[in-house]
Amino acid sequence: MDVTLAEVAALVDGEIVGDPATRLTGLAGVESAGPADLTFVRAPGAGADTASVAATLASTEAGAILLDRSLDAPARPVVRVTDPEAAFNAVCRACGPTAPVPPAGIHPTAVVDPGASVDPTAGVGAFVVVEAGASIGPRSTIAAHGYVGHDVAIGADCRLLPRVVVRERCSLGDRVVIDSGCVIGSDGFGFEPGPDGARRIPQIGRVVIEDDVEIGAGCAIDRARLDETRLGKGSKLDNLVHLGHNVKLGAHCLFAAQVGVAGTTTFGRGVEVGGQAGFRDHIHIGDGTKIGAQSGILKSTEPGTSWFGSPAFPMRDEKRAILLTHELGNLVKRIKALEAAVRRPAE
Amino acid sequence: MDVTLAEVAALVDGEIVGDPATRLTGLAGVESAGPADLTFVRAPGAGADTASVAATLASTEAGAILLDRSLDAPARPVVRVTDPEAAFNAVCRACGPTAPVPPAGIHPTAVVDPGASVDPTAGVGAFVVVEAGASIGPRSTIAAHGYVGHDVAIGADCRLLPRVVVRERCSLGDRVVIDSGCVIGSDGFGFEPGPDGARRIPQIGRVVIEDDVEIGAGCAIDRARLDETRLGKGSKLDNLVHLGHNVKLGAHCLFAAQVGVAGTTTFGRGVEVGGQAGFRDHIHIGDGTKIGAQSGILKSTEPGTSWFGSPAFPMRDEKRAILLTHELGNLVKRIKALEAAVRRPAE
Amino acid sequence: MDVTLAEVAALVDGEIVGDPATRLTGLAGVESAGPADLTFVRAPGAGADTASVAATLASTEAGAILLDRSLDAPARPVVRVTDPEAAFNAVCRACGPTAPVPPAGIHPTAVVDPGASVDPTAGVGAFVVVEAGASIGPRSTIAAHGYVGHDVAIGADCRLLPRVVVRERCSLGDRVVIDSGCVIGSDGFGFEPGPDGARRIPQIGRVVIEDDVEIGAGCAIDRARLDETRLGKGSKLDNLVHLGHNVKLGAHCLFAAQVGVAGTTTFGRGVEVGGQAGFRDHIHIGDGTKIGAQSGILKSTEPGTSWFGSPAFPMRDEKRAILLTHELGNLVKRIKALEAAVRRPAE
Repeated sequence: MDVTLAEVAALVDGEIVGDPATRLTGLAGVESAGPADLTFVRAPGAGADTASVAATLASTEAGAILLDRSLDAPARPVVRVTDPEAAFNAVCRACGPTAPVPPAGIHPTAVVDPGASVDPTAGVGAFVVVEAGASIGPRSTIAAHGYVGHDVAIGADCRLLPRVVVRERCSLGDRVVIDSGCVIGSDGFGFEPGPDGARRIPQIGRVVIEDDVEIGAGCAIDRARLDETRLGKGSKLDNLVHLGHNVKLGAHCLFAAQVGVAGTTTFGRGVEVGGQAGFRDHIHIGDGTKIGAQSGILKSTEPGTSWFGSPAFPMRDEKRAILLTHELGNLVKRIKALEAAVRRPAE
Repeated sequence: MDVTLAEVAALVDGEIVGDPATRLTGLAGVESAGPADLTFVRAPGAGADTASVAATLASTEAGAILLDRSLDAPARPVVRVTDPEAAFNAVCRACGPTAPVPPAGIHPTAVVDPGASVDPTAGVGAFVVVEAGASIGPRSTIAAHGYVGHDVAIGADCRLLPRVVVRERCSLGDRVVIDSGCVIGSDGFGFEPGPDGARRIPQIGRVVIEDDVEIGAGCAIDRARLDETRLGKGSKLDNLVHLGHNVKLGAHCLFAAQVGVAGTTTFGRGVEVGGQAGFRDHIHIGDGTKIGAQSGILKSTEPGTSWFGSPAFPMRDEKRAILLTHELGNLVKRIKALEAAVRRPAE
Repeated sequence: MDVTLAEVAALVDGEIVGDPATRLTGLAGVESAGPADLTFVRAPGAGADTASVAATLASTEAGAILLDRSLDAPARPVVRVTDPEAAFNAVCRACGPTAPVPPAGIHPTAVVDPGASVDPTAGVGAFVVVEAGASIGPRSTIAAHGYVGHDVAIGADCRLLPRVVVRERCSLGDRVVIDSGCVIGSDGFGFEPGPDGARRIPQIGRVVIEDDVEIGAGCAIDRARLDETRLGKGSKLDNLVHLGHNVKLGAHCLFAAQVGVAGTTTFGRGVEVGGQAGFRDHIHIGDGTKIGAQSGILKSTEPGTSWFGSPAFPMRDEKRAILLTHELGNLVKRIKALEAAVRRPAE
């Protein structure tokens, strides 16, 4: 990146204080920014009080600052904006480093079946395998070591980071991002008694990932037993999440890292789940439910409710129960005192 | 798939109601099945009452139904059987889509050391690496991007999905299935004090996986420090499970997703473990123990017992403790009332 | 391995009892060792009483034993040493099987960008991709299917096991070990409101891994949003650990398997974390803190403290609360008795 303060201001519709020709070649947080870096400082309130914001402004070595309009500009180049963080993100998107992706075309080492269809604008990286019947849409990229199974459909503008497996017959919409190490379409965990112990029930369904879904590194998403495991439009998963067979997420769900969901459990829209939470099978989580980290959800939830604990209870009840649990020593003392008091008159 | 109702009936030893020439080209759940699909409907009792089963039968658009013998056939082709679900699974196995595997032979891009032994009926996929001393048995398949380390032994009829790593000297029996992303034989987590901090204790053992074991996507199974980490015959692991060094599973254990087991802990036969449960090191879990999801097991367990909670207590005790914990607000009120009552007479 | 008892004694500075020419070709635990194996037996105290040590010595079939100096030698070859286990580990390091690594040089199938720099003593395995601007230092090895992204810097004597992804701009110090399946530099989980739902905040930082860090299989370490995610010198992570963006570990931290850390949380030196524990975002864990398995840490901790539970409380408080929770049935009975006693006099 190599931009002037004037270019930054134009990009974010901001007001310049200082030399518009100031050149900026980096983007950094306010504490580590150096004289060639652009940074941002929010108004007091969002996690920082007035004094600490003033101290930060006095001590930063940043070359220029995207500054909240309510703040006095320090003695260095500034662009005043309404939302410094959003403005900074916009500059990152426009000028910052981008994650490299394979260029359009098929890397000479890739193995693409003649029966697969790869859009000429798509990028297929080194050692990628694309099986028969698979299709990859415009501008989508499959980075090194990717595996695109038989009859997989990948839409437009998807980005698969290095080493993603999408097994047979699964489908991805547009603008889907899948980080390294994910497995889409693993077999579901369903067994029936067989002559020599448990025998896998055929898992002949698939996974459907809707537009704008993003999936973190190392996740495992099982295919449905018969029909579809489905991730609703815009949902985002953090790293190492497990979704069992037939799980369905509504639109715009947010799952933190290491969440696990057992088979056939379904989620409404906009459900937010804290890290390491787990869900039993065959329940429904209502729209907008919020689940605390490490909670264990054993029952269906009503829309808009909040849950915490393992097993989970309504958030407020669980917090109160936790506090009281840590008062138990005092309760025991009070019971002992009562026992002594009651016994004494009887003596 | 393209079968007639008569062929289905022959396969499952069922009784035809309707036109034996009815053609079926798909397999689906009762709610999503269309006019060319075979589906199944269980007798009331297993999770559905008589009215809902009747409603399902009235509303399904399935082309044909595998139906419990106790039910009246609706006005559409039916095959009456004793166990509709088992019959449906049998049809899936015989006629349904199968997960594609590499054909017999070695893909031209694979790197197979001349000192490795690959049965001519085995299938080795694109970009697979098979190191010196490794052996792959009859009809086993190693899908794309697999890594079979030095001196690894893989038996007959194993199926390694794309991107499985089996590190040096580990061995797999027959009919072992390992889903994508697994690592078999990672180094155990054992350290001793060294001149510059903790130093890894040499992990020179291996992992032995017995016949009919199946392992879900993204699992990490550590090699033993000295001898063997061992997964007993027929055991099944779901996704993202961690087994530390020297862990031993008896036959027919079932571990749900994201379970973690610390080093040297051993399991008897038929242990069932819920998702996200964890086990400390150096304990023994008796035959047939049942462990609830998210439990933390800190002590050895007797055969046939059930445990829940973190740390885990006997299932019944823990459930009672959880209920009482959420009654603590009431207990506090009762104690306050007692205190008032006891104080009053003294006044 | 093929060594004499005399060579073992020289290696560990021990005292021979028996024939110095005894030949040993294997290393094993005391229970599984055979007549050609070296094993070790600790003094009573560290997990074994005097009687069991004597029984072990009487029953082992080991060819030779590294024995604590305090013990009487049995009727078989022995090397007496001060710390039998450390001595055994030293023999393992010197003579035991080692994990194979790619030989120096670049495998003919590897794709190394002309703009990358690979030391001639480094080993790059089959199907490895090394992108432009990356550098790999002396004697470091990148095993099969590794991915070394653009501008990644890898120091000297690092060992990347098969199938490790290091994404763009991340850096590794010297002697770093990363086990199979890890992803270093995945995108952080940060979103801002966008026109069509949540939109990823640009994650333009990187991951810095200091000297002597070792990372287990299947871990996912997110790059920083802006600056650095950092793992301090000598820290060790077990399998399937998740570290969010901007997380910082001090030197010599030990994280057990399946631990998860949310964004921007930082750790001092020597923090020890039990398996499956989780940490919320934006807190600081003081030097030497100890965290029990499955704990959920919601607040910053002071140096040298110990925590347990979800949410976590000081270890001693939590243990007491757990015990009292399982006494609640008795407390209810005592309250009932009090209520009866208090009511009676009033009648």
